Amino acid sequence: MLKAGILTIGDEILIGQITDTNSAAISRALGTIGLRTTVMLSCGDGMDEICGSLTQLLSHNDVVVVTGGLGPTKDDITKKALARLSGSTKMLDNAEQAAIVRRILTARGIELSDLNLQQSMVPDTCRVLPNQIGTAPGMVFRMKGESWPHEPLLYSLPGVPFECEGLLEAVLNDIKSNLKLEDIYHRTLVTYGIPESILAKKIEAWEDALGPRLHLAYLPNPIVGVKLRLSCYGGDRQENVLLVEKQFGKLREILGDAVYGEGEDTLPVVIGRILRSRKATLAVAESCTGGKIASLMTEVPGASEYFYGSVTSYDNSVKTNVLGVSEAILAEHGAVSSECAEAMARGVMERLGTTYGLSTTGIAGPGGGSAQKPVGTVWIGVARRENGQVKTESRMLRFGSDRLRNIERFAGNALNILRLALIDEE
Amino acid sequence: MLKAGILTIGDEILIGQITDTNSAAISRALGTIGLRTTVMLSCGDGMDEICGSLTQLLSHNDVVVVTGGLGPTKDDITKKALARLSGSTKMLDNAEQAAIVRRILTARGIELSDLNLQQSMVPDTCRVLPNQIGTAPGMVFRMKGESWPHEPLLYSLPGVPFECEGLLEAVLNDIKSNLKLEDIYHRTLVTYGIPESILAKKIEAWEDALGPRLHLAYLPNPIVGVKLRLSCYGGDRQENVLLVEKQFGKLREILGDAVYGEGEDTLPVVIGRILRSRKATLAVAESCTGGKIASLMTEVPGASEYFYGSVTSYDNSVKTNVLGVSEAILAEHGAVSSECAEAMARGVMERLGTTYGLSTTGIAGPGGGSAQKPVGTVWIGVARRENGQVKTESRMLRFGSDRLRNIERFAGNALNILRLALIDEE
Repeated sequence: MLKAGILTIGDEILIGQITDTNSAAISRALGTIGLRTTVMLSCGDGMDEICGSLTQLLSHNDVVVVTGGLGPTKDDITKKALARLSGSTKMLDNAEQAAIVRRILTARGIELSDLNLQQSMVPDTCRVLPNQIGTAPGMVFRMKGESWPHEPLLYSLPGVPFECEGLLEAVLNDIKSNLKLEDIYHRTLVTYGIPESILAKKIEAWEDALGPRLHLAYLPNPIVGVKLRLSCYGGDRQENVLLVEKQFGKLREILGDAVYGEGEDTLPVVIGRILRSRKATLAVAESCTGGKIASLMTEVPGASEYFYGSVTSYDNSVKTNVLGVSEAILAEHGAVSSECAEAMARGVMERLGTTYGLSTTGIAGPGGGSAQKPVGTVWIGVARRENGQVKTESRMLRFGSDRLRNIERFAGNALNILRLALIDEE
Repeated sequence: MLKAGILTIGDEILIGQITDTNSAAISRALGTIGLRTTVMLSCGDGMDEICGSLTQLLSHNDVVVVTGGLGPTKDDITKKALARLSGSTKMLDNAEQAAIVRRILTARGIELSDLNLQQSMVPDTCRVLPNQIGTAPGMVFRMKGESWPHEPLLYSLPGVPFECEGLLEAVLNDIKSNLKLEDIYHRTLVTYGIPESILAKKIEAWEDALGPRLHLAYLPNPIVGVKLRLSCYGGDRQENVLLVEKQFGKLREILGDAVYGEGEDTLPVVIGRILRSRKATLAVAESCTGGKIASLMTEVPGASEYFYGSVTSYDNSVKTNVLGVSEAILAEHGAVSSECAEAMARGVMERLGTTYGLSTTGIAGPGGGSAQKPVGTVWIGVARRENGQVKTESRMLRFGSDRLRNIERFAGNALNILRLALIDEE
């Protein structure tokens, strides 16, 4: 199996000002084509540090991916280090990236400076992977010479996470066309609603019987849910496909409707697919999630087809004035109640004129809450129309005391409850 | 300046299943007592990998902190590696940690297994930092012998983030009582609205004159803006404070009202501070940002004091029915227009009964748009009450074609425009 090393460069990483998320994204991407990441390293913006770290990684790996240190400011010297290590004697202007830099800056109404123009200059020892969404290009070096008889591939990507991720597909394609890779076959199931530890127990017997050629990986995320990736490395493609498909089918059966999709599916994508197929529409009323659910729904391109909008009713006056929740409900049951959640879902559905309504009302923390309704409590409501009547239902869930984590869990679970209500109608 | 290295151990990190957040937390903590982190490394659960990585880090640093690999399962062998490297010949039971293990498991209703009892066994070469909230203890080794004539300190902490963070104070105290530390002093400014390259030009002369003892770092983020951190290491505390403060003041002056805060400030935090000080309230109407602004505002604890709520008017019917934007505006100017943005801001302010209204309407892409209004165009509206009258204003901005990136930039810029409108009133 071919080996990879990842280097992230930047003083801001070393002082802990930012958390490095690029390394995990890169290693996940490399894993999909069968490269095994053996080491992740972070070093500062010094020339010696960068050259030393790269030398070490290149000696022990077939592919090295480095991110960061390509910005226009003077503490960014990755490019010089790459030129030195690869034996480059001059910098060339890359016309394609130069055009992109011009386009991006012009669109933003920014005048080009010398610093910007330098961004499209690259060492004459590299090939360029154009960065369509940022000014710093991706670069590929095939390292040669005595120090690296195995001629490792070195990829340099921007440090800004979305630019880095935007170039990963080009990196994978480039690796595939330059190295002989073993066969790898993956299938990924996406689940929601079963915590990782319970999931592990539920599939324990199945997992133990997988045999040595199949590998299962868990990828938990509070909004996406738990992804389960089943992989088979090496050997023959046809055989790998058969092995994986057979077990994948069994896994699906064991997990039932906790499975909501495959691969890159997310709850908003799957919900959008169901709504579109029914020519149905959705409106959301959010209290504790404060706009998070609407934000997740509208991240999906084309969401305007089925998502009409939302009301964030953070203050109780908005619940009554805009959503039509009665004062009596708030007085008798409080804002965090089954009654309020259902009235919110119904209210937003009726006021926005949609087929479905979804609501959340709870206590995200860290303050607030009571003995009956502690921090971490949320009520989720769903409203729909059935034979000219409005039907509502609601469910209570309870989590921990971390505010941001609670908002994510509340939003993810609300979307999952809506999904289950939608498929329940089928 | 004393140097530190950080090692995180675990196959789950290398395959990208989890993002390592411990390294950043540890390095931030070490930074507060003047230790400079020179390297962060992640390796897998193999004995050779762990010993090799530790040997390398110990050779070049005064302090090494390692996390992970202390759980009860069989792939966790950090403790064996530490015993080998430190020349330990036997394992001793730590009575204090053993009592904690018993207490924790009993509270969870779990019967003690041999695996659990092994967790309180430690090599005879270490001191123990008791872990009050988990079963695996912290350990301190003073490494001695030919390989490490500088006698580095080696700390081993649990990999579970909250257990790791729970031990950091004990680690800092232990370091302070064992090493003579240098001074370190940082200040961070947060700016919005000036792109990194233009910012760099603007402060170039100032930066060039900083001298060798001061270091400036840039940290860009589409929602937070560009952070500028000025640091001074070594020497005398009083002198460092004077040096940094003097230049920090100059930097503030050069950048004017692009500076919105310091340290961990974000736009929603700063806006919240202004609103609270005026006993004013805010409502938001979002089209293209789809709930992102409301979501950002409500991530701040206590936001309910000044944030009443929002309307996501994704469908035009919501703009007219809920926000009261006239059909005439939509027909004459379209939804992406100055007129619509101002009507939305005014509508949400009036309907939710707040002091201020903020709105966005634009085209996030990737599809849609026209020659006059290409993808990436956004109108941002602000409404306020002045002497019993409603005043509105609006501004147009244009970005690229990446949907998620556009949503973030639109939201960040809307918050910044609101901030500027708020301070403009002062």
